[in-house]
Amino acid sequence: MTAFTQQDYTFMARALHLAERGLYTTAPNPRVGCVIACDGEIVGEGYHQRAGEPHAEVHALNDAGKRATGAAAYVTLEPCSHTGRTGPCAVALHKAGVQRVVVAMIDPNPQVSGRGIQLLRDAGVTVDVGLLEDDARRLNPGFVSRMERQRPFVRLKMAMSLDGRTAMGSGESQWITGPEARRQVQQLRARSGAILSGVESVIMDDSRLTVRSAELGLTDADDIVRRQPLRVILDTHLRLPLAAACLMAPGRTLIMTTQAGSAEKRAKLEQAGAEVQVLPAGEDGRVELAGMLAWLAEHEQINELLVETGATLSGALLDAGLVDEMHLYMAPTLLGGDARGLFNLSGIARMADQRQLTIHDIRAVGRDWRIIASPVIQEQ
Amino acid sequence: MTAFTQQDYTFMARALHLAERGLYTTAPNPRVGCVIACDGEIVGEGYHQRAGEPHAEVHALNDAGKRATGAAAYVTLEPCSHTGRTGPCAVALHKAGVQRVVVAMIDPNPQVSGRGIQLLRDAGVTVDVGLLEDDARRLNPGFVSRMERQRPFVRLKMAMSLDGRTAMGSGESQWITGPEARRQVQQLRARSGAILSGVESVIMDDSRLTVRSAELGLTDADDIVRRQPLRVILDTHLRLPLAAACLMAPGRTLIMTTQAGSAEKRAKLEQAGAEVQVLPAGEDGRVELAGMLAWLAEHEQINELLVETGATLSGALLDAGLVDEMHLYMAPTLLGGDARGLFNLSGIARMADQRQLTIHDIRAVGRDWRIIASPVIQEQ
Repeated sequence: MTAFTQQDYTFMARALHLAERGLYTTAPNPRVGCVIACDGEIVGEGYHQRAGEPHAEVHALNDAGKRATGAAAYVTLEPCSHTGRTGPCAVALHKAGVQRVVVAMIDPNPQVSGRGIQLLRDAGVTVDVGLLEDDARRLNPGFVSRMERQRPFVRLKMAMSLDGRTAMGSGESQWITGPEARRQVQQLRARSGAILSGVESVIMDDSRLTVRSAELGLTDADDIVRRQPLRVILDTHLRLPLAAACLMAPGRTLIMTTQAGSAEKRAKLEQAGAEVQVLPAGEDGRVELAGMLAWLAEHEQINELLVETGATLSGALLDAGLVDEMHLYMAPTLLGGDARGLFNLSGIARMADQRQLTIHDIRAVGRDWRIIASPVIQEQ
Repeated sequence: MTAFTQQDYTFMARALHLAERGLYTTAPNPRVGCVIACDGEIVGEGYHQRAGEPHAEVHALNDAGKRATGAAAYVTLEPCSHTGRTGPCAVALHKAGVQRVVVAMIDPNPQVSGRGIQLLRDAGVTVDVGLLEDDARRLNPGFVSRMERQRPFVRLKMAMSLDGRTAMGSGESQWITGPEARRQVQQLRARSGAILSGVESVIMDDSRLTVRSAELGLTDADDIVRRQPLRVILDTHLRLPLAAACLMAPGRTLIMTTQAGSAEKRAKLEQAGAEVQVLPAGEDGRVELAGMLAWLAEHEQINELLVETGATLSGALLDAGLVDEMHLYMAPTLLGGDARGLFNLSGIARMADQRQLTIHDIRAVGRDWRIIASPVIQEQ
């Protein structure tokens, strides 16, 4: 294990900070930042902005110019070894005269993992790995998940009253939480490659499931909304109305269905602008969830998937162990026992069966409270 | 409005701190602290320890001795003007030579309010009122409520999962929360004059509803448990089993019933150690709640009432606007949609009918989280 210096930490922290600027725009690529430093001073900085545009290292090298010679580079992700639009970054760093490369985390893609580092070392560049690795992984939970588990990172968002209710018995749910919480949800959407919902919820709310510039509360909102997350709707029997608001909204709508859906309705939905994908059904006759996630990773390169739906689908995802993180927005209100609950879970007959969570953070968001939690993975 | 000095604040804060030592023992009397200071130095301190024992001022004067002459006294509650075991405290302060009395809050009892202050002023003592008054009121929410509203301060305690569930469908509920939360509940019981529960909950849990020395986590626990809160059980049809654990436990059990209860069962319950009180029924045929609270204030001098019960009674108390404060212990678990909910509320048909709460505090208690909230009083 390399002993990193205080300066190493400072520069890598800066590189992570730069990487975050790509939070809403790099998908399906990872967010990556790079700092080039010489004699304790930063001489170049860069971050990856958008898929198809240069990598972080290229921006930082351009920024540094000749001052890269003899310098150290701090990169939040292992430099690539493949030839993209601008050649492998590992080669570029070496050619620019960088003598040491500090890498927060190796590439999680098992197909290329370690190659960039090897290429640098073979060229005589010192490479140190693992500085602020946890932070680097947290920056790209979706990219890491897609590479390591071949499925997106699944983030479940719910809005609830203090007594754990999400909607009236009638389905009415607008609005439980206040504008600050809704703005955060817009930001969660914006960082996600796709939004997943069940057809029942989409019908009930007739929601557009879009990112709206005016509601994002970010300075570069107009730029961010150019990329709309893919809307994924689970719809076993193709019940989505042709006049659904999401079909008129900017961005793509992908309906996941089973063989049970009618060909006629499918044609009409496609005519109305939807894409329709038939996937295998699970035991319950609905789209099998693990397979659906794998499909989204493989065919749509979805890193982060935001789930915004009702108690049935969210409960099924929890039951299947497919939820990585929960963002619960809790309003200071009571809706009572007749209102709809948060999760329909199966197999809880006794207190001993209760599902354990880890609560990571609870904080005020306007008049509401946000709880970030994750299911505790049960030992098999 | 008197301009208080920094020293005034310091001494009154100390008096409030002293008063808190009586948190678990003064009922039905208020918690009161007193500091006597001369030339910027504390010369005497005292607090009320237990009903029937001397008031805070007497302890402080005894502590100060001759140094009380020419001193200032800081009292968290207006000194009494009535002759108790040791004569009126207002007189005692004057006789001891105290020249100035600073009072945090006047006596909330409308029958005596202001008399102690008048008595002091008539004797030529300077009296300043209102220093840290909010803190003084918060110290005795129950005494203030009983005096001003003729009913106890009602504190509702619930233990719930993150999805707002309190028990399995079967009623099984032990344990949702961990030992730290349960210790806090023991402390809530210990400070309360009475604990209220519905017979259904008592039957389900067969709970003793006692304060247990070993579970209190306080150094003077053995002393505190000498006073057990009154157990009040709402039992319209006198269904409490004669073998109920609470009937064997130390302390009194008071069953509140209506005319609907049978005389035979009543006799048996009384033989088993319970006290039985018949009260008017409300429209729903159950004990009318506001009248029940007034009865507890008038006949049992209950200041703080802790409610530990299920969704029906707690919902009815909320519906009736009779809950002052809620302590919700939230475990990091999920129980799912088949488990029992927190509150059965009536009259919530649309989102616009949701009940507004003010959240005062959310903090970690062991692995659980405690939420303190109160219903927002609707303008009529």
